[in-house]
Amino acid sequence: MSLMREEALQAPQAAARLLGEGAGAVAQLVQHLVQAPPRAVLTVARGSSDHAAHYLAYLAMAHLGVLVTSLPMSLVTLYSARIQRDGLLALGFSQSGQSPDLVAPMRWFSEGGAHSVAIVNDAASPLAQASRWVMPLHAGPERSVAATKSFLCQLVAGAYLVATWQAQRDGERSLLQALGSLPEAMAKAAALDWSAALPLLQDAQRLMVIGRGTGLAVAMEAALKLKETCAIQAEAFSAAEVQHGPMALVDDGYPMLVFAPRGPAQPGLLALAAQMRARGAKVLLAAPPDVKEALLPLAASGHEELDAITTAQSFYGLAEALARARGLDPDAPRHLAKVTRTH
Amino acid sequence: MSLMREEALQAPQAAARLLGEGAGAVAQLVQHLVQAPPRAVLTVARGSSDHAAHYLAYLAMAHLGVLVTSLPMSLVTLYSARIQRDGLLALGFSQSGQSPDLVAPMRWFSEGGAHSVAIVNDAASPLAQASRWVMPLHAGPERSVAATKSFLCQLVAGAYLVATWQAQRDGERSLLQALGSLPEAMAKAAALDWSAALPLLQDAQRLMVIGRGTGLAVAMEAALKLKETCAIQAEAFSAAEVQHGPMALVDDGYPMLVFAPRGPAQPGLLALAAQMRARGAKVLLAAPPDVKEALLPLAASGHEELDAITTAQSFYGLAEALARARGLDPDAPRHLAKVTRTH
Repeated sequence: MSLMREEALQAPQAAARLLGEGAGAVAQLVQHLVQAPPRAVLTVARGSSDHAAHYLAYLAMAHLGVLVTSLPMSLVTLYSARIQRDGLLALGFSQSGQSPDLVAPMRWFSEGGAHSVAIVNDAASPLAQASRWVMPLHAGPERSVAATKSFLCQLVAGAYLVATWQAQRDGERSLLQALGSLPEAMAKAAALDWSAALPLLQDAQRLMVIGRGTGLAVAMEAALKLKETCAIQAEAFSAAEVQHGPMALVDDGYPMLVFAPRGPAQPGLLALAAQMRARGAKVLLAAPPDVKEALLPLAASGHEELDAITTAQSFYGLAEALARARGLDPDAPRHLAKVTRTH
Repeated sequence: MSLMREEALQAPQAAARLLGEGAGAVAQLVQHLVQAPPRAVLTVARGSSDHAAHYLAYLAMAHLGVLVTSLPMSLVTLYSARIQRDGLLALGFSQSGQSPDLVAPMRWFSEGGAHSVAIVNDAASPLAQASRWVMPLHAGPERSVAATKSFLCQLVAGAYLVATWQAQRDGERSLLQALGSLPEAMAKAAALDWSAALPLLQDAQRLMVIGRGTGLAVAMEAALKLKETCAIQAEAFSAAEVQHGPMALVDDGYPMLVFAPRGPAQPGLLALAAQMRARGAKVLLAAPPDVKEALLPLAASGHEELDAITTAQSFYGLAEALARARGLDPDAPRHLAKVTRTH
C-alpha cells in the first residue's frame, strides 16, 4: 500500500484526536477571541495548506460574519508593507511549520501585537515558535510528499475553530455538535468506491474541477493533487467563475470533475454539470446518492458545511488509485521529493 | 484587424481619459475615505475584473497598509452571511455592470451603509445604480468578448484610487505622479514585438504563467486570455506557489511564460526561470531589456508597480496574434458571451 493511501486512511482517527486532545487549545484561544474580538482576520499559507485556509475563511465569513484576507506573503517578505498589526488575528497553516517564507510573516505579526496562531502538525516547529498560539493538527507523522491526513486535519481544525467561536460568542452550537460525528463520516467517505472515474481519467491531460461555497477549497485541493500525483493539468473554478472564460476550453470529451455536496450551492452545480454534459464534456459528478446523475458517491456528515471534508476524504482515494493506473508512483511526485538547485 | 487588437490599441488613450476626465470622481471619493477611513476593504468581481481587483488589493495593502478581502459572492447570494456592513469599503469591478450576481451583493452592501464603489465602464449600468459612488472607466464601448482596454482601465483605476488616497492621507505622491506618464508608457508597450513567442506556443496545449507581487494579477489575466482566445489550458501561479506542487507537471518542452518586470520580486522570478530552463522547460521570459535572457521585452512605466500595466498591454498583442496563428478567431471565443449571467 502506498504511503499516500495509508496516511489518507488514518485521517478519521487523526480527526478524532484533534477534536479530543485538541479541545483545550481551541477553547483557550476562543475564550481570548471572544473577550478581545480581533479587528481583522488574515490567513498565511501556501499549497494545500492555503486551500485549508480558504475553507476556514469561507466558514468564518458565513458563520461569524468576519471578513478574512488571504495574505500574499511577498507583501511582508519582499515589499515591507506597513500593515497595522495590533488587534489582527493572523492564522498560519502548515504541515511541517518549517518554511521560512511562512515563518517570517508570522513572526512579524507576533512582534507587532497580532494574535498569531500556528495551525500546524509539528507543534515544536519554527512556525509554532513564531506564533503566540498553537493549534496542533494531531495528524501524526506524515511521510507522503502529497499531503492527505494533514490537509484533512487542517480542514477539521478550521471548522473546529469557527464552530467553537460561534458557540461561545453567539450560543449557536449546531456546527460544533456536528463535528462530534465527523470522524465516523470521514471513515465512511474513505470506504466509498470512486473507481468509476478511473477509466474516464486514465488518459486525461487536462481537467477542470468545479466546486462552490465551502466546496471550492476542496476543488482547489483536488486540482493540485491531480497535478502532483497524476501529472494532469487540472485547475479549479467556482461554478460561477467557469462561465466567465474558462469554458472556452470545454469541447467534446473534455473531462470535468464536479463536486456537488448538499447545500445552497448544489442546484447551481447540478445545472452546470447538465449544461457541460450537453456540450459534450465528460462530466464526473460527485454528489449524494439521491442525485441520480451522480457517478461518484458523497457521504453526508452531520452538517452541510462539513461535507467538504468528507468530499476531500473520498477524493484522495481516487487520486491515489488514478496515479497508479497511470503508471505513476503516488509517493514520488516528479520534481517534488528531490531538491534541484540551479543558478 | 480584429476587434480585440483594435480595442487593445485604444487602451493608452482610454487610460489618458480616465486619468483626466476621471479626476473629479476619484478626488471626491478619496476625500470621503480620508475623512472617514473605512473599517475594512473588500472587492467584488469575477473573471478579468477579478484580476484587476487583485491588483488593486495588492497595491492597497503595500501602499496603504489596509487589508483587502476578495469576497466570494456566494456568501451573499447563496449563504446570507451576516457580515456587518457599515464602515466597509466595497469595491465592485465590472466592464458592463450588468451581471446580477455582482449587482446583488453591491446593492446589499449599499443598503447596509457600506461605502460601495462601482468601478465600471458603463456608468449608467445596474452596478453603478446599486453603488453609492461610481468610478467610470472611460474605456469607451468594448465590443470584443475578450476584454482588453476595459481591463487595462480597471488596473489604471485601481492604481489611481490607491495613489490618490496615499497622496491625500500620507502626502506621498510618487505613485500618483508616475501615473501621469502611464498612457505614453502603455503606447510604447503596445508597440513592442512579442512575436518571438508565436512559434514556441503554436501547438501548446498546456502552459503556466508565472508572476509575483503586483505582477501576479497580470499572470492571472494572461492565463485566462490564453484559455479564452487560444484554447490553451494556462494556469497562473506565483513564483513561490509553483514550487509547492504544480511543478510536478514541468518536463522537457513544457512551456512557461514568466513575467519578471523590475522590482523586489524580480530576482526570485529570474531564479525560477533559470531553474525551470535547467529542467528542460520552454521558458518564455518577459523582462526589461537589461535582462539578457529576456525573450519578450517589457516597457518601463514611471513606477515599478505600474509595470504590471505595461506588461498586460504588451501581452494582449501576443494573445491576439497567437489566436490567429492557431487558426482561431480572437473575437469569437468558443461558448462565451460578453455579459455572463450567473447567480
